[in-house]
Amino acid sequence: MIGIIITGHGTFATGISSAVELLTGHQDFIVPVDFRGEHSEEQLKEHLKAAFDRLLDCEQIFVLCDILGGSPFKNAVMLSIGDERIKVLYGTNLGMTVELAMRGMMGQVPEADTLVNEIIEIGKTQIGKYKYEPVEISEDFEEGI
Amino acid sequence: MIGIIITGHGTFATGISSAVELLTGHQDFIVPVDFRGEHSEEQLKEHLKAAFDRLLDCEQIFVLCDILGGSPFKNAVMLSIGDERIKVLYGTNLGMTVELAMRGMMGQVPEADTLVNEIIEIGKTQIGKYKYEPVEISEDFEEGI
Repeated sequence: MIGIIITGHGTFATGISSAVELLTGHQDFIVPVDFRGEHSEEQLKEHLKAAFDRLLDCEQIFVLCDILGGSPFKNAVMLSIGDERIKVLYGTNLGMTVELAMRGMMGQVPEADTLVNEIIEIGKTQIGKYKYEPVEISEDFEEGI
Repeated sequence: MIGIIITGHGTFATGISSAVELLTGHQDFIVPVDFRGEHSEEQLKEHLKAAFDRLLDCEQIFVLCDILGGSPFKNAVMLSIGDERIKVLYGTNLGMTVELAMRGMMGQVPEADTLVNEIIEIGKTQIGKYKYEPVEISEDFEEGI
């Protein structure tokens, strides 16, 4: 079984996890940890520890951070040191989170480093822009063939 | 002046914008539009229209969506058609949002398509994993040189 902790500044974590919940349903193995303006660094660390405790039975734990650097990332890294089950990612977007959640739901979980690399690649390919593509009318169609 | 609309499922939009606010301070030109479970598609469209109305004076409006497809993206695209000022992106993460917000704050805004491509590239490069790199002790240092 895998566990997913989402952590970030403000309500980034509960925001992303609410979106995942709307798209895939509620998943007990996803734990959001917000670092809100009123939280101290010490409180953040305690909330992250509590999240790891909730996922004690997991063979792999993926911590999805909002951004490289900053308190959520730094504390996640510090708590991960020495625990081979924990992998820390950053730059989290919804696409990669939904993909990881779906893999967890379906139990399609390869070796952790392979999964991490796949999820990072998915996150990158799922960033883009809408571009209007006019539909080309084929000449054959115009001629009624 | 640029405007930024962040939109997504659940509280994705207010989540990301609260994180941007913690990192850069409150910016009037950033408008979050949530598509929560209790909202109808019609309400989402109205909330997006209201967001565009708030940014009427902007020369460029960037809509950052949570994910390709889904109601927030589809409605943003429908409302953007025919309005050259509006660019719709998806796969939003915090890194690209902060970068765009900082550019807006500093007025460093190139032509919209150039900026969109830069922001997408930044979003992609800011996704990664923490990897422990042991510090190598140089032999010179050990020898006291």
